[in-house]
Amino acid sequence: MTQKTINVGICGLGTVAQGLLALLAEANEVLEARVGGAIKVVHVATRTAKPNVDVLGAYESRDVFDVARNPDVDILVELIGGTTVARELVREALNQGKHVVTANKALLADYGDELFELAQAQGKALYFEAAVAGGIPIIEAVRASLAANHITGLAGIINGTGNFILTEMAAKGREFADVLEEAQRLGYAEADPSFDVDGTDAAQKLVLLAALAFGAQIDAQAPFKQGVDSVSPLDLEYALELGYRIKHLGIAKRDGESLQLRVHPTLIPKTKALAQVDGVLNAVMINASGVGELLLVGPGAGSRPTASAVSADIVAIARAMASDGQPQINALGVPVENLTDMTITNIGDVSSAWYLRLEAEDKPGVMASITQRLSEHGIGIESLIQKPESAKLSRVPVIILTDEASTQSVVEAVAAIEALATVEGPVTSLRVENF
Amino acid sequence: MTQKTINVGICGLGTVAQGLLALLAEANEVLEARVGGAIKVVHVATRTAKPNVDVLGAYESRDVFDVARNPDVDILVELIGGTTVARELVREALNQGKHVVTANKALLADYGDELFELAQAQGKALYFEAAVAGGIPIIEAVRASLAANHITGLAGIINGTGNFILTEMAAKGREFADVLEEAQRLGYAEADPSFDVDGTDAAQKLVLLAALAFGAQIDAQAPFKQGVDSVSPLDLEYALELGYRIKHLGIAKRDGESLQLRVHPTLIPKTKALAQVDGVLNAVMINASGVGELLLVGPGAGSRPTASAVSADIVAIARAMASDGQPQINALGVPVENLTDMTITNIGDVSSAWYLRLEAEDKPGVMASITQRLSEHGIGIESLIQKPESAKLSRVPVIILTDEASTQSVVEAVAAIEALATVEGPVTSLRVENF
Repeated sequence: MTQKTINVGICGLGTVAQGLLALLAEANEVLEARVGGAIKVVHVATRTAKPNVDVLGAYESRDVFDVARNPDVDILVELIGGTTVARELVREALNQGKHVVTANKALLADYGDELFELAQAQGKALYFEAAVAGGIPIIEAVRASLAANHITGLAGIINGTGNFILTEMAAKGREFADVLEEAQRLGYAEADPSFDVDGTDAAQKLVLLAALAFGAQIDAQAPFKQGVDSVSPLDLEYALELGYRIKHLGIAKRDGESLQLRVHPTLIPKTKALAQVDGVLNAVMINASGVGELLLVGPGAGSRPTASAVSADIVAIARAMASDGQPQINALGVPVENLTDMTITNIGDVSSAWYLRLEAEDKPGVMASITQRLSEHGIGIESLIQKPESAKLSRVPVIILTDEASTQSVVEAVAAIEALATVEGPVTSLRVENF
Repeated sequence: MTQKTINVGICGLGTVAQGLLALLAEANEVLEARVGGAIKVVHVATRTAKPNVDVLGAYESRDVFDVARNPDVDILVELIGGTTVARELVREALNQGKHVVTANKALLADYGDELFELAQAQGKALYFEAAVAGGIPIIEAVRASLAANHITGLAGIINGTGNFILTEMAAKGREFADVLEEAQRLGYAEADPSFDVDGTDAAQKLVLLAALAFGAQIDAQAPFKQGVDSVSPLDLEYALELGYRIKHLGIAKRDGESLQLRVHPTLIPKTKALAQVDGVLNAVMINASGVGELLLVGPGAGSRPTASAVSADIVAIARAMASDGQPQINALGVPVENLTDMTITNIGDVSSAWYLRLEAEDKPGVMASITQRLSEHGIGIESLIQKPESAKLSRVPVIILTDEASTQSVVEAVAAIEALATVEGPVTSLRVENF
C-alpha cells in the first residue's frame, strides 16, 4: 500500500527546534516504519535571524503565520514561546484546520481554556508533552496509560533550575544566591530567574498536569507558591540529620471534592526515590487507584530531551493520520465540556507535618514558651532539637518537627513565636510530606 | 453523535482479571469520556471454578474459546497464563478478527514471532503492556513516546521477587534461602520459585522489551542468565562499603551492530536512582538518543497494578475504534518484516568492571600471586581490599574491583586464582555497571 506523508511546519528555530530537526533527520528511516508513513518538515519560519541549521529542505519564511496558512502543513509545531504572538499563531493554525504541537507551558496555563476548546471544535489535536517535565513522557502516561485509573495525587520536581540549586546547596553547603549565579553562568537559569525562583514556572506546569490528571479546568493563578529561595543551607543540613531531603515540589492532591495545588520546598524522607533525583533532572510521582505509586525521572529541559517530547506528539498525530484515523483530540483526556470546575482548597486549610527552624536564647523556660505557643494552636510536636550552643552565638538554633497541622494554625503559631522576646528573627517554616 | 460501545471478553478470572473488572467498574463513567465510547465486558470465561466476583453482567462460559468465537467481542483479554492453551486461544482470537491484550510474557517470549505476524496479517492489535514491569507503562513509552529516539541501552529491575530478596538480604544481612522462604510465605514468590531465582522470568521480559526497543526479532533463549542466588549477604555489605548496591538487572545494550542481552546481579553506584528502588518494586532505565536517560519506577506485579496495564492496552484499542480509526497494529513498533535479526554478543565478549570476592591465606606473597593472575589475563585492578583477619578464620576475605574486562578473561583469571593453593573455595564474581 502507498504510505502517506505527514507534513510538519515548525515555527521558531531556537534550541528545541534545532533539536527536533536533528532528531527527525537521525530517525528518518526507522520513524517511517514506526509511524506507517513519512514525516516531512515542509516549512520552517523564524522571526529572528535564521541560525545556521539544516532545515531538511523545508521552505523558509520570516512570518510564522505563513506556516499556519500553508495548506500543505498538517501539523504546526509552535516553538516561538511567549503568550501573545504564540496565542494568535495557535488560534490561526487550529482555525486553518491544522493539528498543533507546542512546548509552551505559559501559553497553555494562561489560555488553555480557549485553545483546548477551539482545538476540540475544529476536531484537531493540541498536544503539549514537552510543556511539562521536558523529555519525561508524563502527559502521555497520564492521558493514555492511566486512563482507567482514578488519580488521587501527584508530586513533581518540575523545575530543573530549582532542583539544581537545591542539590548544589545541599552537596556543598553553598548559599542560594551563590548557586543561582552559577546556574545562570551554566545556562540553567535565565538572566531574569524570577519565574524559576518564585515557583511560577513550576506552577504553570502543575496547572497543566493537574488539569489532565483530574479532568478539571484550572486557573493559572490557582496554585499556592513558596519559592526555592526560602531554603538555606542550614535547613538542608538539619533536614538530612532528621532523615529528610528538601526538594522544591509541585503538588496536586485530591481533598474530597476539592483540590490542593501547591508549589513549595518540601522535606521528603531521604530513602524515597523522589528524594534521590538530583541536579537539573525532573521527576513526577503519581498516585493512582489502579497502579498505586508510579515515578518517572528524566531530563526536564535541554534541546534534545525537549525535542524528544515534541517528536512524541508529532508521532502520535502522524500515526493516526497514516492509518486514516483521528488522533485523540481531547488534549486534556476528556471533552472540554466534561472538565469539572474543582474548588481549590484554601492554602490555610492545607495540612501537613512541618519543619520549623528558629534561633532562641539558651536559657531556662525558653523551650517551654515556644512549645506552649504551638500547643495553644493545636500543633503537636514530633521532635524538637536544640542544637549545641555555638561559641559565637548567644542564641541556639532550634529545630522542630510537628505533627500534621493546617497552614493557618502554623502561620498563627509562628507569628506568636516570633513575638517572643527570647526568639530572634524570623522562623523558617517548611512543609514535610511523608508520602 | 452516538458513541460506540467496545466489547471486551476476558479469559481467565484470576487475580489480574479480578483487578481488571474492579478497575473498569470503578472508572466506568470517566473512562467513557476519556475513550469517547463505552467499554463493556460482555463475556468472561474460566476453565477453573468461578471465583466470587462481580463480572459486570457479562455472559459466562467454561470454555475460553467461546470468547474467541463470540462475534460480539471486539477485544479478547488473555489472562489464563501458560503457553499451550493460551497460544491456541490467541491464535483463534486473531483469526476471528479480534484485537488481543495479554499479560503473558512467557507466551510472547516463546511464540511472539508467529503471534505478532498473525496479528499484523489480520490487521489487529496484540498488546502486552502488562507483560513487562507490571503497572509501569514502559511498553507505551518505548513504542510511542520514544519513537523518534534511537535507543542505545536499557537496564531494568524487572523481577520483583528477586528485588525483594536482595533488599531484605541487604537490609538485614539475612541469607538468600531464608528470605526466599519468607517471600513464598508472603505470596511474592511461587511455590516453585526457580524462574524468579534463575533469571528466566526476567529474561522473558527482557526479550520482549528489547525486541520493541531495538526493532529486532529475539530468541527467548538469547539472554545470558546469572541467578539472584549467586549473591550472599557479605557481597551486599562489601558492595555498600565500596559505594555500590547490588540489583538483579536485565540489561540490553547496543554493541555496534550486535546486541548484548544479559540478566545478572549487578553492582551499581548507590547514588544512582535505580539503586534506590527497593522491595517488590520494578524499574526500567532507558538510554536514548533524544531524551538521554529516563527512569520509570512502579509496582511490577499485583492484581490492580497489572490490571492497570491491561486496561491501558484496552483503552488504546478502544479509543482508536471509537474514532473509527485503527490502533497501531505493529505491536513491536514496526511491521514484522522490518524487524532486524540482530546478532547477540557472545557473553564471553561482554565487558564490564567486576567485583571479585575470595578467601585467601593471610601471609606474604598471596596478594601478589592473585594480582599476577589478573594481570596475566590483562585485567587491571581498580581497588583491592583485604578485610582485617577475623579471630575465627585462618583466611581473610579479599575484595577486588577490576577495570573493564571481558567475561572470557575474567572467567579464565578466576579459574587460575581458584587453582592457587593459598585461595580457599570458589571466587564470587559479579559485574559492575557504572552507567
